[in-house]
Amino acid sequence: MVYITRREHFSAAHRLFLPEYTDEENLSVFGKCSNPNWHGHNYILFVTVRGVPDPVTGLIIHLRHVSKLIDDRVLSKVDHKNLNLEVDFLAGKVPTSEILAIGIWNELAGGIRQLGGELHCIRIEQSENNIIEYYGE
Amino acid sequence: MVYITRREHFSAAHRLFLPEYTDEENLSVFGKCSNPNWHGHNYILFVTVRGVPDPVTGLIIHLRHVSKLIDDRVLSKVDHKNLNLEVDFLAGKVPTSEILAIGIWNELAGGIRQLGGELHCIRIEQSENNIIEYYGE
Amino acid sequence: MVYITRREHFSAAHRLFLPEYTDEENLSVFGKCSNPNWHGHNYILFVTVRGVPDPVTGLIIHLRHVSKLIDDRVLSKVDHKNLNLEVDFLAGKVPTSEILAIGIWNELAGGIRQLGGELHCIRIEQSENNIIEYYGE
Amino acid sequence: MVYITRREHFSAAHRLFLPEYTDEENLSVFGKCSNPNWHGHNYILFVTVRGVPDPVTGLIIHLRHVSKLIDDRVLSKVDHKNLNLEVDFLAGKVPTSEILAIGIWNELAGGIRQLGGELHCIRIEQSENNIIEYYGE
Amino acid sequence: MVYITRREHFSAAHRLFLPEYTDEENLSVFGKCSNPNWHGHNYILFVTVRGVPDPVTGLIIHLRHVSKLIDDRVLSKVDHKNLNLEVDFLAGKVPTSEILAIGIWNELAGGIRQLGGELHCIRIEQSENNIIEYYGE
Amino acid sequence: MVYITRREHFSAAHRLFLPEYTDEENLSVFGKCSNPNWHGHNYILFVTVRGVPDPVTGLIIHLRHVSKLIDDRVLSKVDHKNLNLEVDFLAGKVPTSEILAIGIWNELAGGIRQLGGELHCIRIEQSENNIIEYYGE
Repeated sequence: MVYITRREHFSAAHRLFLPEYTDEENLSVFGKCSNPNWHGHNYILFVTVRGVPDPVTGLIIHLRHVSKLIDDRVLSKVDHKNLNLEVDFLAGKVPTSEILAIGIWNELAGGIRQLGGELHCIRIEQSENNIIEYYGE
Repeated sequence: MVYITRREHFSAAHRLFLPEYTDEENLSVFGKCSNPNWHGHNYILFVTVRGVPDPVTGLIIHLRHVSKLIDDRVLSKVDHKNLNLEVDFLAGKVPTSEILAIGIWNELAGGIRQLGGELHCIRIEQSENNIIEYYGE
Repeated sequence: MVYITRREHFSAAHRLFLPEYTDEENLSVFGKCSNPNWHGHNYILFVTVRGVPDPVTGLIIHLRHVSKLIDDRVLSKVDHKNLNLEVDFLAGKVPTSEILAIGIWNELAGGIRQLGGELHCIRIEQSENNIIEYYGE
Repeated sequence: MVYITRREHFSAAHRLFLPEYTDEENLSVFGKCSNPNWHGHNYILFVTVRGVPDPVTGLIIHLRHVSKLIDDRVLSKVDHKNLNLEVDFLAGKVPTSEILAIGIWNELAGGIRQLGGELHCIRIEQSENNIIEYYGE
Repeated sequence: MVYITRREHFSAAHRLFLPEYTDEENLSVFGKCSNPNWHGHNYILFVTVRGVPDPVTGLIIHLRHVSKLIDDRVLSKVDHKNLNLEVDFLAGKVPTSEILAIGIWNELAGGIRQLGGELHCIRIEQSENNIIEYYGE
Repeated sequence: MVYITRREHFSAAHRLFLPEYTDEENLSVFGKCSNPNWHGHNYILFVTVRGVPDPVTGLIIHLRHVSKLIDDRVLSKVDHKNLNLEVDFLAGKVPTSEILAIGIWNELAGGIRQLGGELHCIRIEQSENNIIEYYGE
């Protein structure tokens, strides 16, 4: 079993808040991430797939197929977008990196399986100091 | 003459567009950075000051004073903010990184001089692939 | 279950040696890290916490509370300090990164639990080439 | 149980192809990595060893012994070499990073055990976007 | 005057040698970079352009046009190629990073001018420890 | 004219203080860097040399000779040492990064000239946030 990771990145705006809260309540729960006029990040995304290398080609999976899948199912939806307003798989949710990682897992797991691998981990670096990992369970 | 650089970072939303343009015109000039619902970045800011080290202390400038100045004049205005809507020194301008670098220079040059140094360069990394530098002229 | 990591850093002096050994013996066991006049490092610290995102807020834990806990229990004790002479949780121990990681785990595990998460991993990068991880067992 | 990682790097040429395939077939399976005139990479290698810190010295293993072992068994064979033509432990194999990681594991596992540790992971960063990990099973 | 830098990367094989030298002579001049079976690198390329921001758009130059120019004139020729055998602008030259930087400058300077900017610097990081810069003079 | 940079690193202890000052005075001038029990850093050192590439070999200078010079004149004196107590070229000086950069320049400039190049810049990254550059004038 070998693990292969593809690194991608995207830039997006978001705001952490609950509409039923006042601005003060949102500030106390979400801190400066609740700024009503949005803010944004460069997100670094690591998608890890596991599998057994093919005995002939030495490959687990065609990484450019993984890359295309990530592009179709994730990057095209989130890059240079507003995570609160424009992303189908985040609709109705607070777009924390935790929720984003789970959402990206759900977007990719099936497609990875069709490519012959198994999705192992979604890792998101929201900044160099804040990192989220989700293993699907 | 020695050059000392302080690295800081901030996260902000922005949109590149001209209000007198249609969305299509903005898209053709500014690309996906014109997305009407905003997007955002983690900006890395490098402030370089030059000066002659003090013969007794070996210091050009007290870097924590520089750091405090950057915090007061720049970070408190831009971190977790919307560069189009909330930043006084960018009012009425398209917040490209070029314009942002010039704006930050103007915010800091006088204060650096009062601290006994001379501002040499403002460098902004908007992403790991796109970098802007401004030397005040 | 989602894993969230906070990255922090500190700078400290240390010396690897056993007082009952001669300088030659210390040199043979600890190499140049046994230099009697100390040396030091910029340590990068990664604290990973695991938990289930709150169904309402989408957060596992308030990261600024984690950050404050790290500051109170670890950074305030080790940053710009001598790990051999000034750190209570290392007293009487050889301050290798292994021992440092275990010590930091013990400083943080209880407080993380009180914040509603579970400490998962302490990772220390003593240099870009030497990395230590401890998972509490 | 503590995990210690040593980071090393090497530069090598390689080509992904099967001699029984035509150039077109190789291109369709391996993409531009099948270029007949070779290409190359700066590989970053992370070797992770686990063990229990010695109660006296606080060390799991002497990292400079690990480093020497990596140098003798791996770097001396692959650095500034052609992975297809010059590396004994890759002979007759397609030198993908998957196969390279398994090969390096086999080169190091016994020697790490003799040094008193247990090899835990071989991680290879073939580029900043493509990463392979192998845990020996 | 503002400076804008675009970062790109490519992977290539090369060999430093003079055909009129023996292998021993090449080894003594070029060290292990003279390995007859090639080796390779991940090259990081930084292209810096200078100009005055447009008073309306705030842009010096359309960075995606710069990126396309780099792709057409440089990356398509060198990525996953052999620098000794396959690159027109290096024909008959020893492909050191010095010569590579000068060659890339010559490929790009005219096109950058047509895009309305002025090429300022070509920077190549052949490894994290070896960096070359060329300013066109 | 081409510029070539070699990156090296070393780890050292230091303390910023003036012996004629009280601890309180030192604290007010040098902040936490005045800690009487020392602290330390991983210093990253960039040595930039300029020259004209040899028309035959395409090289400005043999980088491994530069590397050996840095090792002999700088790294062997500062790595895993105490900058206040053990470094001849810093004797009697406050070992700020400013003073360290000037000292390293003086150690290297003559030797670089003998190797056929001209020393252009000494850059020291004392941490990822604090950087010093010295150009010899």
